[in-house]
Amino acid sequence: MGTGPVHEELAALELVDHHCHGVTTGPLDRPGFESLLTDGESWPGVSSFDTPAGVAVRRHCAPLLDLDRHAPADTYLARRAALGPEEVNRRFLTAARTGVFCVDTGFAPLPLTPPAALARAGGGTALEIVRLESVAESVAERGVDAGGYADAFRAAALDAVRRPGVVGVKSVAAYRTGFDLDPARPSDADVTRAARQWLARGGRLDQPVLIRHLLWTAVDLGLPLQLHTGFGDHDIRLHRADPAHLTDWLHLIAGTIPVLLLHCWPYQRQAAYLAAVFEQVYLDVGLTLHHVGPVRARTVLEEALEITPFRKLLYSSDAYGVSEFYALGALAFRRGLGDLLQDRVDADELSLPDALRVARWAGADNARRVYRLPDGH
Amino acid sequence: MGTGPVHEELAALELVDHHCHGVTTGPLDRPGFESLLTDGESWPGVSSFDTPAGVAVRRHCAPLLDLDRHAPADTYLARRAALGPEEVNRRFLTAARTGVFCVDTGFAPLPLTPPAALARAGGGTALEIVRLESVAESVAERGVDAGGYADAFRAAALDAVRRPGVVGVKSVAAYRTGFDLDPARPSDADVTRAARQWLARGGRLDQPVLIRHLLWTAVDLGLPLQLHTGFGDHDIRLHRADPAHLTDWLHLIAGTIPVLLLHCWPYQRQAAYLAAVFEQVYLDVGLTLHHVGPVRARTVLEEALEITPFRKLLYSSDAYGVSEFYALGALAFRRGLGDLLQDRVDADELSLPDALRVARWAGADNARRVYRLPDGH
Amino acid sequence: MGTGPVHEELAALELVDHHCHGVTTGPLDRPGFESLLTDGESWPGVSSFDTPAGVAVRRHCAPLLDLDRHAPADTYLARRAALGPEEVNRRFLTAARTGVFCVDTGFAPLPLTPPAALARAGGGTALEIVRLESVAESVAERGVDAGGYADAFRAAALDAVRRPGVVGVKSVAAYRTGFDLDPARPSDADVTRAARQWLARGGRLDQPVLIRHLLWTAVDLGLPLQLHTGFGDHDIRLHRADPAHLTDWLHLIAGTIPVLLLHCWPYQRQAAYLAAVFEQVYLDVGLTLHHVGPVRARTVLEEALEITPFRKLLYSSDAYGVSEFYALGALAFRRGLGDLLQDRVDADELSLPDALRVARWAGADNARRVYRLPDGH
Repeated sequence: MGTGPVHEELAALELVDHHCHGVTTGPLDRPGFESLLTDGESWPGVSSFDTPAGVAVRRHCAPLLDLDRHAPADTYLARRAALGPEEVNRRFLTAARTGVFCVDTGFAPLPLTPPAALARAGGGTALEIVRLESVAESVAERGVDAGGYADAFRAAALDAVRRPGVVGVKSVAAYRTGFDLDPARPSDADVTRAARQWLARGGRLDQPVLIRHLLWTAVDLGLPLQLHTGFGDHDIRLHRADPAHLTDWLHLIAGTIPVLLLHCWPYQRQAAYLAAVFEQVYLDVGLTLHHVGPVRARTVLEEALEITPFRKLLYSSDAYGVSEFYALGALAFRRGLGDLLQDRVDADELSLPDALRVARWAGADNARRVYRLPDGH
Repeated sequence: MGTGPVHEELAALELVDHHCHGVTTGPLDRPGFESLLTDGESWPGVSSFDTPAGVAVRRHCAPLLDLDRHAPADTYLARRAALGPEEVNRRFLTAARTGVFCVDTGFAPLPLTPPAALARAGGGTALEIVRLESVAESVAERGVDAGGYADAFRAAALDAVRRPGVVGVKSVAAYRTGFDLDPARPSDADVTRAARQWLARGGRLDQPVLIRHLLWTAVDLGLPLQLHTGFGDHDIRLHRADPAHLTDWLHLIAGTIPVLLLHCWPYQRQAAYLAAVFEQVYLDVGLTLHHVGPVRARTVLEEALEITPFRKLLYSSDAYGVSEFYALGALAFRRGLGDLLQDRVDADELSLPDALRVARWAGADNARRVYRLPDGH
Repeated sequence: MGTGPVHEELAALELVDHHCHGVTTGPLDRPGFESLLTDGESWPGVSSFDTPAGVAVRRHCAPLLDLDRHAPADTYLARRAALGPEEVNRRFLTAARTGVFCVDTGFAPLPLTPPAALARAGGGTALEIVRLESVAESVAERGVDAGGYADAFRAAALDAVRRPGVVGVKSVAAYRTGFDLDPARPSDADVTRAARQWLARGGRLDQPVLIRHLLWTAVDLGLPLQLHTGFGDHDIRLHRADPAHLTDWLHLIAGTIPVLLLHCWPYQRQAAYLAAVFEQVYLDVGLTLHHVGPVRARTVLEEALEITPFRKLLYSSDAYGVSEFYALGALAFRRGLGDLLQDRVDADELSLPDALRVARWAGADNARRVYRLPDGH
């Protein structure tokens, strides 16, 4: 890691991780760990350790388990098992030096730590992000008729966001339909008709009219809205997750809620454009950071920042499942942003006070401002 | 700024800025300046100075106003006001060391310097680019019936391009419809029908058939056609401004007029592809240069040049409103291209004579060739 | 070229070039050479030598013809003519140090060396890739009725792939229709109807239903399928050659054949995403390597490798026509990958044994595995 005053500022700063998930607390065998290491399944003959993320884990996480750098995968997993999940999670979560964890609690195919336990292990505070598709699917599971869906969903969403500690909502529309949607708020009749189809069929919410309705319900809720954009697992159609497709909708909702574009890669420049021209748009490059690893995080951040106003970049790890990703995401962010800013200071392209300010903004203050975090956080 | 023979060549070279606008001559308060500094509006709590362009202004423009590098925004604006617009514009325009200014006169929501005054302040020569949408809208404002629209537009465009000093035309189809258009020349009947709709409704020209007709009228005019591509203000739907969508049309017009793709970011590689495979296609990365600032201009130029024939890259500032952008655009271009070429010379990947030739071509000679500029220019 | 153990490993490694074409054996005048140097036509006043590829030829290929680095184009071509095609081809092909050439024999508007002669000149072994569009067009030329097309095409394809030395098939669907196709296997009735249209019209195969049928026939053949993606000559609609459009089809064919995404630029990140989330997807950045030249090959490789599992990157030159591209592709690959990996080793981000393994995998072993190359190869 480079050194200099900007790096020191970022090292001392408690991050606000505005989008993350819980971690598993049970034991993980090699296939189980490899599956979480990649954003999908593990394949025979193609180890997840043989990826940029896998190399980064062996390089940067092994020493946190008292192993040599670049420890072999089996050695790594044996040591991980010997220490036990609680100690492993404590080490990686505290290594992230994160003051606030905003946890998306709506995706848990595996049992995951609840936000409070996560924050306790990491020495920080937990806040919650409500995933709206999960709310809608719970409404459907509890039973509702098509004509009552809109009201029931809105009521359930309001209940969910009024719980203590909830600071925002999230949509995975990128996975369900992509962003190439009619931007207009659907009529009540259209919602009822679409609900009739979906409720008859069941399954996850991927009906385009209902996804539009969900996004507009987010506007009514009034809280910041996180949107998954860009890459994820193989459920994504990447070109339909290009956030540029949101432009018409962003025009329609101008003056309402903040919209936070998550991940963005490989469309970080498209996201930067939106953040530069829409007052309500923010972005991060979470998820990307641990998948590309510390070696490439700077390049992705450089592209994300080419035209982005410095008030618009946030930090997230988007860590999920394995606590390594908390440590790696924070490391990649601190090093990538630190190197980028310090080099500009060293080249006299940016003043040091400005660089320190940008570092604090991106690492914590922008999130505090957007989510109106109370002082205690 | 790096140093070396390529940098010296570019420092001595009088640029041809093949696409720019006028500058304001009146006083600018902080909101007025901030609004021009970003490509849109200024927002409460998110200063336009806290952007890559804002940092670049404080770093590189402040010294030209006799201030320290990285001067605070208020200090900068106070000094700017004290010197007065005329002196400020003279300083930044002469700092750009530009021999020829090709001025797009068709966009002036604010009062702007006419080309002659701009060139006088910058110590260069003014030429003019006619914006075809403005010509069409003037025809509509003067009154025309749908059946006479095509002839009236063509006659008005011919009148406009026959004015002394006009060397090209421009279209902002990217803003109005995007490029995902039927590439064929529309029939007379289609044009009349579309004109009937548009003339009844009024407002700016954004009727797809009429935009196609405009592009084909440009072909008939026979002058080089500039096309805004890629990013701009929030009127753009970025993905529809990807110049790759022009491919079918470029096939149809092969052998007619030169087409100059302006700005291009973040699609500079797509633009480079078109410049590599179509004889008539050229590109620049104007606008981008001052928005990303001198720190990132090299990267954008590197991508733009990955496969672009060296005869195909031009320089433009796309400066508009504030004269800082003339100075910044020229600085970012000279430094970015100079560093890129000099490093290749230093690594023995490019001979020095070749590097000097490429620098002169991109900075001036390619534009002179495409626009057939007389020797005096 | 950088130096270090990774560079030495790559220098000693005999590459597997999993996708290339033959070279011309006749004399080439300047227009003929310039036309092959660019991926299209040569234009008056815009020499193909004034491109990144042209500069790379003068820099890196001239010395292999006993000329000074950066030799002028005319000097270069005179020396090339004096040595004669056989000697020139021998020099460049052996400079590529390629052990296995997988030759696409389906595109030969010019007379080209057959695979065996190519491999002999290069000191390696020849294998063959069958281009399926050429098979389909041969079936049409020999005469078939619409109802018999599907069976005749399948039989001809089976005959073609059963020839000795055939290890894979290829489709240029990117050129013919792009990838924005209905992903489902077309019905027999649809194929017959489409064949009726195409056979009546003749010409190259660009009927969307038949292209889909061709891709599904490739699945039935069971061999690895190469897909041209991203840039090529001006027949491409670049945005429709974005491999992300293949996602739905890749879901449908999961568990069947390996799919190798060729070239990819400027969509190397999109290709990397597919390689990261689909077990059967692989990629290379062939063609790109010699067009961007050794100076930029590293950047393209860095982007291609941001999230790609190390088992998924292959080497190809995609050399065609002039043997310079064999030498340049191999040089750009060895240097780009060598610099990238060695710098990570030097920064202690990657262990040396891991780096050497990744180099061997990408340069040869991944291809040996995917194509199940016999030990002799």
